[in-house]
Amino acid sequence: MELDRNGLEVLDRAECLRLVAASTLGRLALSSGALPLILPVNFLLDRDRIIVRTSPGSKLDAAVANAVVAFEVDDIDALSHSGWSVSITGLAREVTDPADVAHIAALPLAHWSHADGHVIAISTDLVSGRRLLAAGQTRSAS
Amino acid sequence: MELDRNGLEVLDRAECLRLVAASTLGRLALSSGALPLILPVNFLLDRDRIIVRTSPGSKLDAAVANAVVAFEVDDIDALSHSGWSVSITGLAREVTDPADVAHIAALPLAHWSHADGHVIAISTDLVSGRRLLAAGQTRSAS
Repeated sequence: MELDRNGLEVLDRAECLRLVAASTLGRLALSSGALPLILPVNFLLDRDRIIVRTSPGSKLDAAVANAVVAFEVDDIDALSHSGWSVSITGLAREVTDPADVAHIAALPLAHWSHADGHVIAISTDLVSGRRLLAAGQTRSAS
Repeated sequence: MELDRNGLEVLDRAECLRLVAASTLGRLALSSGALPLILPVNFLLDRDRIIVRTSPGSKLDAAVANAVVAFEVDDIDALSHSGWSVSITGLAREVTDPADVAHIAALPLAHWSHADGHVIAISTDLVSGRRLLAAGQTRSAS
């Protein structure tokens, strides 16, 4: 098992994407009026792309198209501080190809109420993940 | 109750800080090698400052000192999609004043294992929050 400089277990790309694929809520960092901002977003992983939907004209819509963005997914227990975190950096592009839009529209993401929304795909060029162990839990036991 | 353009309840600053004060895990957006990244961090709210601790020489340490950063705290149920989210944008500065360092060292933040870490305070200049309601829950019922 690979550990980072802080003693956390390093997750490989395949394990990171497996954890992300099983999640539906992430956080997206963007710039709004030249200031950084983090927003929670619903998403799904389609092959190796993060898919999010935006409302036309929204802050999110303006910020993410054709920008390099950061996306993060985690599942951390606040009391025990155990869990995992995956950070992704990639290029966000609007999906406009009709066949691709239709493919994405058929994916089972709940709570996509904006039928007129733009579909944004974020590439997963850089993926890094860590597993956090609860205090008192030995690393060799995981 | 104020609603935003997406129909979400807008939380005022006092309510945002009350929710943040009751939390211990947030996400911090930073730049690492000119690329954006989001990392989960333990924190506490001390008056109107977000306090985080960094390891000397770490990615986090290099990125947050004297930078305008984004910080986010939420508690969202992934199944019902109900909960809240608070986004903060502020200036991150290392705390070096001895009296202030001693004050912060006495605060009850668990899991601060790095006794030699730097203490970073993030101002809460811009605070915005939203409450998300579960699907099917009427807004007037909240």
